[in-house]
Amino acid sequence: MMTQTSDIRPPVAVVEWVGGASDGFPRLLDQTRLPTETTFLDCRSREDVFDAILRLVVRGAPAIGVAAGYGMVVGSRVISDDANLATELETLGKYLESSRPTAVNLSWAVRRVLKRAKSTDGDAAAVREAMLDEARAIHAEDEQMCLAIGKHAEKLIAPGMGVLTHCNAGALATAGIGTATAGMYVAHAMGRKFTVYCDETRPLLQGSRLTAWELQQAGVNAVVITDNMAAQVMKEGRVQLVITGADRIAANGDAANKIGTYGVAVLAARHKIPFYIAAPYSTFDLSLQSGEEIPIEQRGSEEITRGFGRRTAPEGIATYSPAFDVTPVELIQGIITDRGILQPVNEETIQGIMG
Amino acid sequence: MMTQTSDIRPPVAVVEWVGGASDGFPRLLDQTRLPTETTFLDCRSREDVFDAILRLVVRGAPAIGVAAGYGMVVGSRVISDDANLATELETLGKYLESSRPTAVNLSWAVRRVLKRAKSTDGDAAAVREAMLDEARAIHAEDEQMCLAIGKHAEKLIAPGMGVLTHCNAGALATAGIGTATAGMYVAHAMGRKFTVYCDETRPLLQGSRLTAWELQQAGVNAVVITDNMAAQVMKEGRVQLVITGADRIAANGDAANKIGTYGVAVLAARHKIPFYIAAPYSTFDLSLQSGEEIPIEQRGSEEITRGFGRRTAPEGIATYSPAFDVTPVELIQGIITDRGILQPVNEETIQGIMG
Repeated sequence: MMTQTSDIRPPVAVVEWVGGASDGFPRLLDQTRLPTETTFLDCRSREDVFDAILRLVVRGAPAIGVAAGYGMVVGSRVISDDANLATELETLGKYLESSRPTAVNLSWAVRRVLKRAKSTDGDAAAVREAMLDEARAIHAEDEQMCLAIGKHAEKLIAPGMGVLTHCNAGALATAGIGTATAGMYVAHAMGRKFTVYCDETRPLLQGSRLTAWELQQAGVNAVVITDNMAAQVMKEGRVQLVITGADRIAANGDAANKIGTYGVAVLAARHKIPFYIAAPYSTFDLSLQSGEEIPIEQRGSEEITRGFGRRTAPEGIATYSPAFDVTPVELIQGIITDRGILQPVNEETIQGIMG
Repeated sequence: MMTQTSDIRPPVAVVEWVGGASDGFPRLLDQTRLPTETTFLDCRSREDVFDAILRLVVRGAPAIGVAAGYGMVVGSRVISDDANLATELETLGKYLESSRPTAVNLSWAVRRVLKRAKSTDGDAAAVREAMLDEARAIHAEDEQMCLAIGKHAEKLIAPGMGVLTHCNAGALATAGIGTATAGMYVAHAMGRKFTVYCDETRPLLQGSRLTAWELQQAGVNAVVITDNMAAQVMKEGRVQLVITGADRIAANGDAANKIGTYGVAVLAARHKIPFYIAAPYSTFDLSLQSGEEIPIEQRGSEEITRGFGRRTAPEGIATYSPAFDVTPVELIQGIITDRGILQPVNEETIQGIMG
């Protein structure tokens, strides 16, 4: 029996609004406590929301956007000055945006809620109702985006398959069922049995800490491997499909994602395993001709030398720590978007889906 | 000015005999304290040696062999019963062998010292002198083996090069300058400047904890990267040569080594970077037709889920943890042995060097 896809929920609510516009607040899963503790943080003020975004209680571009949208509502509650409402809201927006200045979705969500506020007639209470409505819309759209990706992606997952993923492009990074994980949750809801190999994803271990945790919560058969085991796992014939997320995709299809993704794609090619990217169509940045234009951020040394409490490299040793890499389009079998699967991936098919 | 190769010493004495046959003992670098503390352990009894091998104070097949040889000498000191000397020594040998039953070099060294004892006429003191002489010979041969590999390997390291290595096939695993690292120490002693990228090598982090440490001690420019950064580092053109060790090499040239080595070889091939194995000729096991006959040991889950002291994966999660992988011969540019560099690697050239 097919499950209704509308029943497919994320394994845990990463962000939800509790209560009404006048008394409610966003409740966030505290991801800093995972995988050992499942606790939620109620953000009852703008400062609470700011702090939660800053401390990575909530993470992943879509999830941050949704949290910030709700943050505008809860943060506006202290504004009693109807005369200066617009100015006060602008100040609130700038404040929330400054919690993680490089997060594009954060700013986008804040601006969207502000625009709705400006176009609303009435007192502060009416404006707040409208803002909550807009924040809920952002939330619902994110859920729909994930579900749309999932419905396309599940077709790639056959019974008994091994699927490898890298980092966390999961439910924990969105307000829905994730991007790379979306097809897994849909296939699982349809009763299909398969195994997901989660690369632990050094240096920050999002694969073992987050992806393995959320799949386990949902009852999906997840197996953690260290990054350097992926080649052997593929060689042993345990993997028939790779799906990862992407942070940015250039006009030619080159895709930037968490460090290690490119290596996985090279290994998949060697073992003739199809390598797919799952990402909303909004991930395409057509202003970039190719991946070569994507700058690679460097991370600090301590994440490598002192990743998890104790020092694992000598004092004073040099490190090199690119945060991202770019997978060239020739290694990408297809890109699973909310608008369908791009396959083959090239400028034409990308233009087609973006048009 | 060329340095005399006889002057090339390991950065630290992993194992050394202190004193004479009647009062001396092996002093071991305590590798369990690296990379944060450099301490030495004096093994004044058979129990001390047993415990040091068991606890991985000393590790790496050649280094364990040398330590065990010296362990026979220090362990024999309590034997005063000349009449039953042979029986007592046999008991001692079996005891030391049981500290790490799968370590072939351990058993080999113990048997060699025992054989020397049996062929020696005289009292216990004379036998002990002979055993120390044999243990020193094992030690010296290991140093010579490393140096021979190093003299061949240094020719591959050009000024300004980036050399990538995986795990620790270094001085810390031998009683000399290591195998994969040997060419680096020789080139460094000759005044050549180059950079060594050390894969951290999850799950046990031998690359960041050990290889980076010993290269740093010697003043070699070492850079630690996480395993999943190797692909990007290669793509950026930072690496021109890969050298790793091997645990076992089959008759066709397939080489078993620490998990992750195979992946590195695939990445090197993609980037047209020559991939070399450095290992003594004794690593060849001609009873194995190919790498497919090499069994892959599985390791425990905790090394992945709790590798850095605190839990980094959810309670109850499945893991898959192959300890080794096999690099097929077609990915191996050459094998650097103490008898010269095999290149190309095939059954003929291997037979040639083993003959």
